[in-house]
Amino acid sequence: MASSPITMMKMKLNNCSPPSTAAAARFLPLLGPHQIRFRSSLALFHNPSFPRTIITRSTFSSSSIITAAMASEASVKVIDGKKVAKDVRDEINAEITRMKDSIGVVPGLAVILVGDRKDSATYVRNKKKACETAGIKSYEVCLPENSTEEEVLKYISDFNDDPMVHGILVQLPLPSHMDEEKILHAVCIEKDVDGFHPLNIGQLAMRGREPLFVPCTPKGCIELLHRYNVEIKGKKAVVIGRSNIVGMPAALLLQREDATVSIVHSRTKNPEEITRQADIIIAAVGKPNMVRGSWIKPGAVIIDVGINPVEDATNPRGYRLVGDVCYEEAIKVASAITPVPGGVGPMTIAMLLSNTLLSAKRINNFK
Amino acid sequence: MASSPITMMKMKLNNCSPPSTAAAARFLPLLGPHQIRFRSSLALFHNPSFPRTIITRSTFSSSSIITAAMASEASVKVIDGKKVAKDVRDEINAEITRMKDSIGVVPGLAVILVGDRKDSATYVRNKKKACETAGIKSYEVCLPENSTEEEVLKYISDFNDDPMVHGILVQLPLPSHMDEEKILHAVCIEKDVDGFHPLNIGQLAMRGREPLFVPCTPKGCIELLHRYNVEIKGKKAVVIGRSNIVGMPAALLLQREDATVSIVHSRTKNPEEITRQADIIIAAVGKPNMVRGSWIKPGAVIIDVGINPVEDATNPRGYRLVGDVCYEEAIKVASAITPVPGGVGPMTIAMLLSNTLLSAKRINNFK
Repeated sequence: MASSPITMMKMKLNNCSPPSTAAAARFLPLLGPHQIRFRSSLALFHNPSFPRTIITRSTFSSSSIITAAMASEASVKVIDGKKVAKDVRDEINAEITRMKDSIGVVPGLAVILVGDRKDSATYVRNKKKACETAGIKSYEVCLPENSTEEEVLKYISDFNDDPMVHGILVQLPLPSHMDEEKILHAVCIEKDVDGFHPLNIGQLAMRGREPLFVPCTPKGCIELLHRYNVEIKGKKAVVIGRSNIVGMPAALLLQREDATVSIVHSRTKNPEEITRQADIIIAAVGKPNMVRGSWIKPGAVIIDVGINPVEDATNPRGYRLVGDVCYEEAIKVASAITPVPGGVGPMTIAMLLSNTLLSAKRINNFK
Repeated sequence: MASSPITMMKMKLNNCSPPSTAAAARFLPLLGPHQIRFRSSLALFHNPSFPRTIITRSTFSSSSIITAAMASEASVKVIDGKKVAKDVRDEINAEITRMKDSIGVVPGLAVILVGDRKDSATYVRNKKKACETAGIKSYEVCLPENSTEEEVLKYISDFNDDPMVHGILVQLPLPSHMDEEKILHAVCIEKDVDGFHPLNIGQLAMRGREPLFVPCTPKGCIELLHRYNVEIKGKKAVVIGRSNIVGMPAALLLQREDATVSIVHSRTKNPEEITRQADIIIAAVGKPNMVRGSWIKPGAVIIDVGINPVEDATNPRGYRLVGDVCYEEAIKVASAITPVPGGVGPMTIAMLLSNTLLSAKRINNFK
């Protein structure tokens, strides 16, 4: 999660409105582990197993179960990333309390920020806040734009050796005079909570191997599918975009779950035709409203990773955020969709916390 | 190339005959770097660039150019892996001579064989022979079945330190009492000519990164496409099979070349329908004749990695080798296809030699 899928692309407003205007759409009920029946005729929502969770103890509230029981097919539409992220953070919080009480260890996450990019500072602030809320101790280093590579490497080396730190995150992008690859590789693999190290990616790609960490945003996408009990095995999945931080690892994750995966990218000649075959679409391309209603097979499940600011004179900030999927069109065709904002976005930080907890547990051999 | 795609599966004869019986099929002409025009109306064969080669000097003979000029569309069918592999080996041989004359270095490949599996012994013997022919010095260690892990690790460690050795290959499978992953990881990444280390695979998956080595069989598949000037960029490619040694890295390689890639596997519900959309098919599943004519889009290019022995009472050995693709049906539909044997098979060892040369050049900083 060292960089963000946000593309500062601007465009004219089209007929796709943000989620807030799609007032009729109701939130898709979460499936809790205690729920034994789920009434839904949606083709993809028939996995009888309980949703897999990233940590073992679950704090699903009974209210979500009640909601599920009342849900009708027409209302099953919006995948509530905010809610899931909160559930995940609550679960992490409970696990951290258990670990602290049991062995006295508190997970620690170190974030290194170089330069004064406003967006990077915001991300780091949000991460810090989320850490505090979850009970993770955060260590923050802010270095000036003109710092040397050696200075950054020295901090990484210190954090590598620090037993209080279980995850190290270098906020990207780094200033242009620094070798990003060299700096990221300096983070020891056991603390690479971003999961961007090629060794991690290789293990993600290989059958029979387990990565130490799964990159946060794609992990969040899959977690949303799990929490909403979307069956992945044997389904056709299309990933739009092949970035190292989202598209590519998302495709590898879907394949690990036995989906039949196709990857659509800028060189794909007929993206619409290929996407229209998908039962599950993960869009991570950074182009506002690129995926139109006509691209979507009726009943498909859509995870929209894009967070694109587009001009909007009616908004006090002068812009609003939209996804890579034309939401207003998609919601008429898909069986479920993540809104932007409030879909994948909140999951990314939740997964960072999850990876940090995982690291602390592994380093301390705490089950 | 530590293990082979051969599956010792047996089946009854079906109506698919081996390449030798498809007498009408003629060999697809190779494209040489000096050829300036290539008459072909095949949709996929219109890449105007010269074929990329794995080493810079080319020894394409003028005869292949003449063949190309004479080729008619109807005859453009069989991709001659034997011929390409010979060309590659000749090119490697020339490069080795140049390096030896220039800096006095001869590439060295160490092969470790544990146990007395007959097939493994055959592979090792073939590799040794190919090394000798190409001018690569081979070092062979044969250990008894009941050797310890420590003994194997000691040999690997010695080869890691030996400046005469530029590639180390542990023949798989290892005896069951050994930890394959541990042993393979002991090979230093700079000498992992198999390219199976997760770090290599990770770098293969990531955009903007370069693996030190590409696994031999998938590298051979792509090399065949290049040598026959098959355009990959923007084409739909389907890889059947997702093994760590062929299918998965083949999919990553095709994606690096800007194909739109779909991966079909045992959990895919409609493999025929998906495969039929492909301009390029790489079949690496180990099931004799699985891909039938009806699975193939007219004009598709097929790389058949399978080498499956099937019962054949008419054959003195009692069996014959067939691919994953029903050759006799496929050749009526495809624009080009690799035969089995004589297609991908010979390329695998050629690519091992290529990787060993690459390693020797890199270690000695020889351009």
